[in-house]
Amino acid sequence: MQQQISVITLGVADVARSKAFYREGFGWEPVFEQDDVAFFQMSGLMLGLWEKAQLESDMQRPGVPPGSFALASNVESAEAVDAGIERLVAAGATLLRPADAPPHGGYRGYIADPDGNAWEIAWNPAWTVDNEGHVTFGV
Amino acid sequence: MQQQISVITLGVADVARSKAFYREGFGWEPVFEQDDVAFFQMSGLMLGLWEKAQLESDMQRPGVPPGSFALASNVESAEAVDAGIERLVAAGATLLRPADAPPHGGYRGYIADPDGNAWEIAWNPAWTVDNEGHVTFGV
Repeated sequence: MQQQISVITLGVADVARSKAFYREGFGWEPVFEQDDVAFFQMSGLMLGLWEKAQLESDMQRPGVPPGSFALASNVESAEAVDAGIERLVAAGATLLRPADAPPHGGYRGYIADPDGNAWEIAWNPAWTVDNEGHVTFGV
Repeated sequence: MQQQISVITLGVADVARSKAFYREGFGWEPVFEQDDVAFFQMSGLMLGLWEKAQLESDMQRPGVPPGSFALASNVESAEAVDAGIERLVAAGATLLRPADAPPHGGYRGYIADPDGNAWEIAWNPAWTVDNEGHVTFGV
């Protein structure tokens, strides 16, 4: 299989609330929206927000809580990490970890979206992000 | 913030087991590996497998189970969905939903990786995937 991720779909309790959060907190606009689902065209993949019961029915796996994973969106500087986290918290995020410097370098903090899904906001000087948002590994 | 996802990091109980699963099941090769972490260069973003306790410590959020989300990797045909799921199950995946046709078209099934993280293997004729694996929304 192609070394490729096509979609990240998050199960959310209230699609309207989540759309407002992603719009206000991240500043992102959906490419498609209905009452029960929204898609954001991201950097080479889609982010989906889908009514949680429908996602769970679709994957035939009911009743699962938010999980042991983190999504990340990298920004261009440490200052942009702080500004991003401030904006996300103002939009309704829960602060998990205030931003600080990890042992491997850079600067990062974590927040949870209204359904508890974790996002890392990070500045990683070793990884390049091109103008289309495509990220390339570096050390 | 740029409309961009940089990394998906999954917290895993046994990094060696997970690396073997992603290598054998999906056929993907890591770009970086240590005992406690591995990164795969994906289509414009990174997939990270990180020792679960370390991820939870890093995000200051201990004890969370696998969650209400699904990652997806889209393939070129319905036959490739069946073949992909068969290979993943042979590599140790749990079958969540055998592949069938959803109401919105195409063909898809779901499996869980060794830590319970859900993946959808899908053929979606409305969405284009270019040679670099970058996915574009379509209806």
